[in-house]
Amino acid sequence: MSRRSLVLTFRFHSLLTPDHSLLGFMSSSSSLLADLIEALRCLPGVGGKSAQRMAFHLLERERERGLKLAGALEQAMRRIGNCSRCRNFSEDPVCSLCASTSRDRHTLCVVESPTDLAAIEQATGYRGQYFVLLGRLSPLDGLGPEELGLGQLNERLAEGEVEEMIIATNPTVEGEATAHYLAQLAHQAKVRPSRLAHGVPLGGELEYVDRGTLAHAFGSRQNVD
Amino acid sequence: MSRRSLVLTFRFHSLLTPDHSLLGFMSSSSSLLADLIEALRCLPGVGGKSAQRMAFHLLERERERGLKLAGALEQAMRRIGNCSRCRNFSEDPVCSLCASTSRDRHTLCVVESPTDLAAIEQATGYRGQYFVLLGRLSPLDGLGPEELGLGQLNERLAEGEVEEMIIATNPTVEGEATAHYLAQLAHQAKVRPSRLAHGVPLGGELEYVDRGTLAHAFGSRQNVD
Repeated sequence: MSRRSLVLTFRFHSLLTPDHSLLGFMSSSSSLLADLIEALRCLPGVGGKSAQRMAFHLLERERERGLKLAGALEQAMRRIGNCSRCRNFSEDPVCSLCASTSRDRHTLCVVESPTDLAAIEQATGYRGQYFVLLGRLSPLDGLGPEELGLGQLNERLAEGEVEEMIIATNPTVEGEATAHYLAQLAHQAKVRPSRLAHGVPLGGELEYVDRGTLAHAFGSRQNVD
Repeated sequence: MSRRSLVLTFRFHSLLTPDHSLLGFMSSSSSLLADLIEALRCLPGVGGKSAQRMAFHLLERERERGLKLAGALEQAMRRIGNCSRCRNFSEDPVCSLCASTSRDRHTLCVVESPTDLAAIEQATGYRGQYFVLLGRLSPLDGLGPEELGLGQLNERLAEGEVEEMIIATNPTVEGEATAHYLAQLAHQAKVRPSRLAHGVPLGGELEYVDRGTLAHAFGSRQNVD
């Protein structure tokens, strides 16, 4: 290999190899900075490069807001627990949705996670109450009726106040299995179970709807009045 | 308008309007959660939706790492200052790059920001020292020679140790103006100024290189030995 092609090889090598030296350099420069960059990677969707960009951005321009974020994070991580009644995130023993007197106590919507609750609360005009499973039936992951608080849900149904239980689990295999189980619970407690409608989403084009959804929507077509 | 078209109008309206109710709902649900979501928006590239996703992710799965992030953030925001010699971020009065005895004290690389310093340190084998301007000459933004620490840079050059000053400002209009000013400083102090080479970037295709860069690269073509 001539000297020139060696130089070229080296150049292209350093062009193509990924950035392994990042944290190594950072830690030699400032260990607090390296700690911050490493810690920022716990955020979903944030890798080494974004973490570095975030750290520099905060240090250069947003120290005040960075400190506020540190405080908010610590408070939230330490003090937010779960509502004793619906298992949603709450800093109080009973969350404001459960404590509210203006929400309808005759309908109960069962969701898998607080994120789903937030989505329903933001999108719909639902004014009833919720129960959050914090998971779905998944025996392989060790998630059975116990872990999902179904005993607690059963007690709630047995109180006799709930008339309709809206099952809003995700339309995945495990979500469907959970929905099936929940419907049985409701029947036993003489509560009317209902489910979110499946069908073609609004604002899309039939051409791009997946086959399973389209077949379902076709099969459960509804009369136009 | 018939009742049915009213319902349809309402449906499409709620489909199309953006999500204004997010923080409203969040704050009614848990104010610590709302605070956290709001605070996360100080991160670059993070809007309401991502902030919500991050907050739920941390609360559901990563409380420990979330607390660690809070600690790292607070430490970094409070304790990282600027090196008294090169103005780079540092938690000590003099940063490790300036304090190092293994770095060449005869070359000084001048960059606009700590991010640029990090990029050069990661990409090149440069073993000299740095000076960070923390900005660029921009009279309209109130950034003059004073704010960029050029007096301090002058003293550094007057010490007589520096032989070459590598000017690595950004190739923008303001960066070029700053580079011009810096070159004059160097000449006055009898230090040899040099600049990063401009030209076509490695690994790209000529077809997609912008016209200015291509014209420059063509004009400053180099002999092949």
